[in-house]
Amino acid sequence: MTDTPTFAAVEEAAAFIGAHLAPTPLVHCYKLSQMLGCEYHAKCENLQPVGAFKVRGGVNLIGRLSPAERQRGVISASTGNHGQSLAYAGQLFDTPVTIYGPERASNPAKVAAMRALGAEVRLFGRDFDEAREEVEREAHRTGCRYVHSANEPLLITGVGTMGLEIFAALPDVEALIVPVGGGSGICGISLVARHLNPSVEIIGVQSESAPVCHRAYQQRRLDVEAPMATRHEGLATRVPFAMTSHMMWELVDRFELVTDEEIDAAIGLLAREAKLVAEGAGAASLAAALKIRESLTGKKVVGILSGGNAPADHLARILQNG
Amino acid sequence: MTDTPTFAAVEEAAAFIGAHLAPTPLVHCYKLSQMLGCEYHAKCENLQPVGAFKVRGGVNLIGRLSPAERQRGVISASTGNHGQSLAYAGQLFDTPVTIYGPERASNPAKVAAMRALGAEVRLFGRDFDEAREEVEREAHRTGCRYVHSANEPLLITGVGTMGLEIFAALPDVEALIVPVGGGSGICGISLVARHLNPSVEIIGVQSESAPVCHRAYQQRRLDVEAPMATRHEGLATRVPFAMTSHMMWELVDRFELVTDEEIDAAIGLLAREAKLVAEGAGAASLAAALKIRESLTGKKVVGILSGGNAPADHLARILQNG
Repeated sequence: MTDTPTFAAVEEAAAFIGAHLAPTPLVHCYKLSQMLGCEYHAKCENLQPVGAFKVRGGVNLIGRLSPAERQRGVISASTGNHGQSLAYAGQLFDTPVTIYGPERASNPAKVAAMRALGAEVRLFGRDFDEAREEVEREAHRTGCRYVHSANEPLLITGVGTMGLEIFAALPDVEALIVPVGGGSGICGISLVARHLNPSVEIIGVQSESAPVCHRAYQQRRLDVEAPMATRHEGLATRVPFAMTSHMMWELVDRFELVTDEEIDAAIGLLAREAKLVAEGAGAASLAAALKIRESLTGKKVVGILSGGNAPADHLARILQNG
Repeated sequence: MTDTPTFAAVEEAAAFIGAHLAPTPLVHCYKLSQMLGCEYHAKCENLQPVGAFKVRGGVNLIGRLSPAERQRGVISASTGNHGQSLAYAGQLFDTPVTIYGPERASNPAKVAAMRALGAEVRLFGRDFDEAREEVEREAHRTGCRYVHSANEPLLITGVGTMGLEIFAALPDVEALIVPVGGGSGICGISLVARHLNPSVEIIGVQSESAPVCHRAYQQRRLDVEAPMATRHEGLATRVPFAMTSHMMWELVDRFELVTDEEIDAAIGLLAREAKLVAEGAGAASLAAALKIRESLTGKKVVGILSGGNAPADHLARILQNG
């Protein structure tokens, strides 16, 4: 599984996952467009079965395992949407899924959601890295397929199917704004955009409180250090991943950073003005659009609303204060 | 404009409004389907430009006025989505729109939204009926076209285009659950459903705190009395309207009543589990589905999420308590 992801592989992924996942809507947000001075569309990955885009990758990877691999099952580390995505696909393809999460930092609602989808969830270690190291040992012991959260061609090409749907719905899109966690989303979309229309601007977004991919992008190096203090889990990247980083350096036009407060404000705007529930990562695209609105004036812009799994009390606080 | 609305007129409306409004998504709600034991789809009218289905009718009516009528403008009474819908269409077709609302009962956010769309909003009288009577006098004085909120064939056939989109996306739908305010939505959808598949079950929903259409339906009479105390504005019907009532008596299979509390719970579920913001009327369809879930088991069900204009603080309270 070290093949380089390609546009043709995204098309294959679309043919495969189409039987299992409906396309998500691309919604023209009328009021947000007026605020931004552009034609703003949200790609609504929050409306996926598990509330996030990653399920495209999970279905593409688990659905294409060999019968023997399926029987042995898959194992991974996740505090959130990656784990739910594998659990969903595991249920679909009758494949045992084991997810490790750190004992203290795992969101109980997401743990419950993974268990409801039939996954075995094991809480281990103090942080994500300790959980991940245990997963690697366990994969070695059991022969289960270890699924990395980003360095997986089938995850990248699976989530790239978002890009095909965007171009089918809006062929003359001019700018794509994509939140970056591990980078699988922006890499998959970029493969499509660069193939179908190289002049489309591709803009990555991270939080100022967790800018490691931004730094790696600027310096074109993996061995960078950056703080990791964002409250928005889907953007909480500690280290840049090799496969996605090299693709981003080649394919992404620019990176923007937004503050956690700007992301919260965008969560509020999406709920009030676009009637869509977004988690922090999902709202980061709108936060960036607001920040760079002058460069978007009059353009056809798509913001990836990558997920909607915001804790209800966090959303409540934002709506109360707005 | 006293023509009886027909299926052919809904098709005409679809051809006309298609140039101005994109179809709304029909979203398969995975987690709600699991809760309900059926295949539950939400017709997402909350994603319309003004956040509610009524804009289909507004565009169909105002867009098809004569040049002289457009120049004189339209006038109506509304406390909410009807007024925003006319304001939106007025802006689209360069038609002056005047909306009357009661001085105390008008929602300031909706008044502001109508004004932002270029409408003249006049606050008059103690309640909706006083405002409406003043509108009728003013229409007489000025020659403006008075747009009733329900007794208008072009509004009914305009909103009926929802039904065409539902059958295009899910031809084998088995049950349609439709919130009832004035009744234009359910009448328009019923025209389509009865024409395309007479065996589809059509279920109307009102609040127990404002059940006047339900009573009129049961007794097949317009001169019924009922309390009107719901906090969900889109369902706050005082009197049954003649045109829509007679159509409902002929076309609707059954009516369900839900409590305001059940509606609030459904607003919370839609936000948490389907990532969609609904106002009370928009969530009433899900509240009814939960109430009658045994009769829906295994079926393909569409709930009309008729609008998303919930006050932010109301949504915040529900999410805090959920």
